[in-house]
Amino acid sequence: MSWMVEDREFSRENIVTNGNKYMTGNGYMGCRGTLEEFGKEQLTAITLAGVYDQAGGKWREPVNAPNPLFTRLRCNGERLGVLNAEPLSHRQELDISAAVHKRETVYSISGGELAFTAERFVSMDQLHVLAARFSLVATSDCRIELETGIDSEVWDINGPHLYGLQEHISEGVLLSTAVTGELGVQVAVSEMTVCAFEKQETAGVGAQRVIAFDAKAGEVYTWLKYVAVYTELDCSNPDVMAVRTVRAAEAAGYRQLLAAHREAWAERWERSDCLIEGDDAAQFALRFSIYQLLIIAPTESEKVSIPARGLSGQVYKGAVFWDTEMFMLPFFLHTAPGTARNLLMYRVRTLDGARRKAAEYGYLGAFYAWESQDTGDDACTLFNVNDVFTGRPMRTYFRDKQVHISADVVHGIWQYISFTGDDSLLADGGAEVIWECARFFYSYAYYSPVKQRYEILDVTGPDEYHERVNNNAYTNALVRRTLEVALECAELLQIVNPAQYHRLAVQFAEGPFLKEFREMLESFYVPQPDPDTLLIEQFDRYFRLEDVPLAELKTRVLNPNEYLGGGNGLAATTTILKQADVVLMLNLFKSSYSRAIKQANWEYYEPRTEHGSSLSPCIYALVAADIGSPDWGYPYFMRTATVDLTGESKQYVGDLYIGGTHPAANGGAWMAAVLGFAGVQFDGKTLRVKPALPEQWTAVELPLSLQGGSFRLRVSREEITVSAAAGNRDTLMVCAPGSTDQLCQPGAALTLRTAWAAAGDNDNAAAGE
Amino acid sequence: MSWMVEDREFSRENIVTNGNKYMTGNGYMGCRGTLEEFGKEQLTAITLAGVYDQAGGKWREPVNAPNPLFTRLRCNGERLGVLNAEPLSHRQELDISAAVHKRETVYSISGGELAFTAERFVSMDQLHVLAARFSLVATSDCRIELETGIDSEVWDINGPHLYGLQEHISEGVLLSTAVTGELGVQVAVSEMTVCAFEKQETAGVGAQRVIAFDAKAGEVYTWLKYVAVYTELDCSNPDVMAVRTVRAAEAAGYRQLLAAHREAWAERWERSDCLIEGDDAAQFALRFSIYQLLIIAPTESEKVSIPARGLSGQVYKGAVFWDTEMFMLPFFLHTAPGTARNLLMYRVRTLDGARRKAAEYGYLGAFYAWESQDTGDDACTLFNVNDVFTGRPMRTYFRDKQVHISADVVHGIWQYISFTGDDSLLADGGAEVIWECARFFYSYAYYSPVKQRYEILDVTGPDEYHERVNNNAYTNALVRRTLEVALECAELLQIVNPAQYHRLAVQFAEGPFLKEFREMLESFYVPQPDPDTLLIEQFDRYFRLEDVPLAELKTRVLNPNEYLGGGNGLAATTTILKQADVVLMLNLFKSSYSRAIKQANWEYYEPRTEHGSSLSPCIYALVAADIGSPDWGYPYFMRTATVDLTGESKQYVGDLYIGGTHPAANGGAWMAAVLGFAGVQFDGKTLRVKPALPEQWTAVELPLSLQGGSFRLRVSREEITVSAAAGNRDTLMVCAPGSTDQLCQPGAALTLRTAWAAAGDNDNAAAGE
Repeated sequence: MSWMVEDREFSRENIVTNGNKYMTGNGYMGCRGTLEEFGKEQLTAITLAGVYDQAGGKWREPVNAPNPLFTRLRCNGERLGVLNAEPLSHRQELDISAAVHKRETVYSISGGELAFTAERFVSMDQLHVLAARFSLVATSDCRIELETGIDSEVWDINGPHLYGLQEHISEGVLLSTAVTGELGVQVAVSEMTVCAFEKQETAGVGAQRVIAFDAKAGEVYTWLKYVAVYTELDCSNPDVMAVRTVRAAEAAGYRQLLAAHREAWAERWERSDCLIEGDDAAQFALRFSIYQLLIIAPTESEKVSIPARGLSGQVYKGAVFWDTEMFMLPFFLHTAPGTARNLLMYRVRTLDGARRKAAEYGYLGAFYAWESQDTGDDACTLFNVNDVFTGRPMRTYFRDKQVHISADVVHGIWQYISFTGDDSLLADGGAEVIWECARFFYSYAYYSPVKQRYEILDVTGPDEYHERVNNNAYTNALVRRTLEVALECAELLQIVNPAQYHRLAVQFAEGPFLKEFREMLESFYVPQPDPDTLLIEQFDRYFRLEDVPLAELKTRVLNPNEYLGGGNGLAATTTILKQADVVLMLNLFKSSYSRAIKQANWEYYEPRTEHGSSLSPCIYALVAADIGSPDWGYPYFMRTATVDLTGESKQYVGDLYIGGTHPAANGGAWMAAVLGFAGVQFDGKTLRVKPALPEQWTAVELPLSLQGGSFRLRVSREEITVSAAAGNRDTLMVCAPGSTDQLCQPGAALTLRTAWAAAGDNDNAAAGE
Repeated sequence: MSWMVEDREFSRENIVTNGNKYMTGNGYMGCRGTLEEFGKEQLTAITLAGVYDQAGGKWREPVNAPNPLFTRLRCNGERLGVLNAEPLSHRQELDISAAVHKRETVYSISGGELAFTAERFVSMDQLHVLAARFSLVATSDCRIELETGIDSEVWDINGPHLYGLQEHISEGVLLSTAVTGELGVQVAVSEMTVCAFEKQETAGVGAQRVIAFDAKAGEVYTWLKYVAVYTELDCSNPDVMAVRTVRAAEAAGYRQLLAAHREAWAERWERSDCLIEGDDAAQFALRFSIYQLLIIAPTESEKVSIPARGLSGQVYKGAVFWDTEMFMLPFFLHTAPGTARNLLMYRVRTLDGARRKAAEYGYLGAFYAWESQDTGDDACTLFNVNDVFTGRPMRTYFRDKQVHISADVVHGIWQYISFTGDDSLLADGGAEVIWECARFFYSYAYYSPVKQRYEILDVTGPDEYHERVNNNAYTNALVRRTLEVALECAELLQIVNPAQYHRLAVQFAEGPFLKEFREMLESFYVPQPDPDTLLIEQFDRYFRLEDVPLAELKTRVLNPNEYLGGGNGLAATTTILKQADVVLMLNLFKSSYSRAIKQANWEYYEPRTEHGSSLSPCIYALVAADIGSPDWGYPYFMRTATVDLTGESKQYVGDLYIGGTHPAANGGAWMAAVLGFAGVQFDGKTLRVKPALPEQWTAVELPLSLQGGSFRLRVSREEITVSAAAGNRDTLMVCAPGSTDQLCQPGAALTLRTAWAAAGDNDNAAAGE
């Protein structure tokens, strides 16, 4: 089974999408999958997690470090590179088993050919280190000049961000330092190039050197590059650390660095690889999705979370959206609880920003940023899209009306507590976040004296094509959950940490607090299924909108990049949705709704969903599996799992470039496969498995981390097997439809024969075969 | 002093605006000021009050009757008319003292000249009758052919509306009948032409006849035209009535009809003329404004009210807006209480439509139509303006969010009760309207548990450039007033008509009713002046909008017809207003706010007002007078009073034609002169006069009808004189600044010396001189 992403020719058109497809990274930094000779025009970037800067009045965005991989080749005075010379052959590949990127290009030179290879990796073992290995062989003698070093001409969308650039070379170490404009954070990149052959070395432009040598025909010339990256957010002396680290890396040597890197990756995969039997294409796409999550996961920092475009550049301001909690968190919860905790601690650390935002709008508590960066202040602007017809900025209501973000954060925290049993997160700030979010909603809500209920008015739900709606089903359901969690949290914290409970109870003594939450919960309105149609209305009066078929709506489009939402958006006055909204709610609260309700709403909303967001398709796959129609969901799964392989995602909204990787879709692909088709459901106590495998899938097998225990699960049509690591502390209750519930003891394995394929369970009648 | 509107040449460019400027009418029908030879291309129309029709899916609009005034001239076989021949001279005039329209045109003919005159009037004495007198004289012998009769090719914006056209001639009477498409209402127009000379008559096209004769040089040929118009809304046999009435008119003769018409007009003017001494231009403009109101006032019907474009055509669907209650009603209250009652009875009669609208949106009570026609159902569409950039209909929130309309109706009813003392309106349906409106607001309101107050959310205030706002100051103030009126109404009705009170109390026994109104009133939020700046925020967060100067905003306009409000409107995200909103509120509740508050808000909002509505300028004139700065207000008064004389109003919003007359501005001009500059304020008991005359005005003199009594008031800088008709029942208390309050007995006159010019009263320090 292949672990290899590859292209066997060079195509100028794919430079940008290949930058995403061939990305490497380690959560500290992301390295776009560009070639060694590329510069900023090709969107080369080493994007640093959590380092943000604002230049002028432009959008605040992450900082890209100077590029230490830059390497350009001359042969007999002529430049060789895919942008200058049509190569005789070219191959780019990425081994996702270990995140090693490789290119091999053969150029025509006078009297023969020259083959150039470059291999590189961003160390998963040492997060500040990159290493690369280059080789060159020609069929005829020639004069070679390498320009290599640190390219400070970095790609920026809203730059420049780096000022006071200083470039030194000292005892073979190139050092480039600069400080960010807004916060004055020093960024230091060091580089060493070590050649295994005789050469002449001279200084080049900036932090480059020119290495010249006479290459003999048939002889292989190799050289190595070591890189270290630090910023002042890591330590007080990033320049010193960069130099020290790069020297240590060089001393350790490429082979040893690579071995340690491979080992770290092996360990990652062991905890997260998910096998799909019977469907190689799905297997590869799912692995690639998991790979994308692994290269951006903040394994060692609780100061950062995962931006909507990962570390693939500055798109969407490098901001963290609800995507993390709702689309990525489940993968980490099931496979890397420590990383999951970091993601949630990021919300704890940005609570003050959320408080500031709530206060800015006159509310209590915490209103989390729609686009969150380092401080938790909202990076989202009120004018987020330009009108393609007038070129004028368009008022959108992402920032001020998408209040569900605070409920999403609470949902994420409570999922973590349930899954891991690690209630220390509550005392570490989690409880305060939960209560501040509940306080926010209490202050946001209004009571209708006639309807005698609390409502949530004037919001934008996940379906952003319909702004400023009342009683959005998703939002209201999540707000109710927030209130419930706020009360459950009080019960739990009183038990596990009474001192902390007391401290917070005093802090919130003036209310609104538990009494008010309870009162609101008692008469809180969440849109319910219509008794006849079983449909849940997405928001008040949604069913009165023009019910135009999607294909017909598209005939009304005048400009391919026009935004369908916003003030005059074509979808805004119709039933056409940007993305799953009610169906997403049904997925989150799947045990509260009958299969008939889920199916009716899936069938109603699915043809009305435009999937203007990459977050949308996976939800239709999940709910299709849940209602026992996995084959309805399979195309949505594949679409989600291949989004960063095919590059076939929306690249523009209005005139705004939104390309990059799609970690929410990556997480969604995992959810669709594991929570959807394999039917894994864990409530903190019981593992329920209700599989609904797509036609060609024979089994799914994967590791699971539940309540601190390690398990391995295999799900086929006939049976479900669970094995528990010997070191597990607790037993696990396992249930499957048609089978007796069983307890899985530490170190034991058990098998449940599933009856569902025999059509005994109505709920799964459509599945299988 | 002139009472004459006139043009001394013909200009093709002014055809449309002259159709408005030279309008005649009598409240039953409006007759556009077009020339006799004009057809539908020149927007010729006899617009019938209260007869509406919808053709296809197009906008429902009033029906225009076939044109019985049509008269076309041939001389020696050549057509003579301003559209065919350049006249040697041309004069069009309208005597507004008696609403007589006249044209006189001299054409060149072979061997000399031909003078053609036509005089016409829409009888104010017999509302179904029109009459016209024509004459012709040539300087050389010639052969004349007149085509005259009823032109059925009517102007329609969203027609056709008339079907099954039948045209008869019987014993000299032409009769044209047709039925409307939607409701099948018969419309009958009859016509007789009587010539005072020998002629040959043959049938022409449709309901035309051709009258031919040989005209001798120097001899004057005159002929008369009698017309009657009936519809099935007037009687069951409009065709019979039309024939009968036109024969009676012919029998009475032109001279007698005209004399009775003049007498009716004299009586109208006696009750409403307002004299301005010292400013002829203002005098004429104000008289013209009053004239416009008189020709459209429903003096004899309580089934119709006054549409926003009067009876000048089908613009704005012939619909009745808040304009009537808030801008026209004061004129009628002070001068023609019977007509004022009719206007309000129209709201009583359309209560069921308002109930249907409330129910449609899930509310209780009565939500009056934003655009009201015969049934009170809302003629306003959700897509009221087209986007000039895409040509696509734009979602606007006039219909569903401009809830202040119900409060405006209540305000109007209560004003009527206060002014006239005629509380019979309450039992005749007024109380039910008031309470249903209060019930509507109770169901529309929400309670914030944190702020502990009721709020009115998600509305559009008078300033339509800012849609869907929360706690619009105007709206909330009017809603509070509605609740107060609902309670006051209960007290009054219990006294004056306990039986009716009891019946309604039973009807509303399930609530919400008085108890709930009282409770809501106790914690109802109305935006208050900031203690430091004294500014009242137009709505929540208005002060956070981009505060761009109007001139700068205009530089951003890309298309002269682009709508500044709506989804992506340029003004929507700025502080720029369409029209007076807070300032209008301050005017309505002037005694509740200090002069300092009124001035601060006037000065703040005035430069930010774009006056995209013809309703706006008069309010700035009114409040300028109120704060003692009449000269700030004078330009606004003149702009308002001349809007239908100059034709300089907005003709398009998006690609929508909105031309026609402006009765709200006409009413606004009267308000500015009388309630503003003359400073008349009557609360049902006391007449307060606080004049603030513009520089060149020496006095204002006018009749007033107060609580059923007739008075004459003269206001100069030095003194205020009031005389009461001998037949008055009650005395009137009169107050003026710096003067002792005095009681004016029936038949008596009194004079109050005003001290304000002597700078004694701070409130008027800036006025005068």
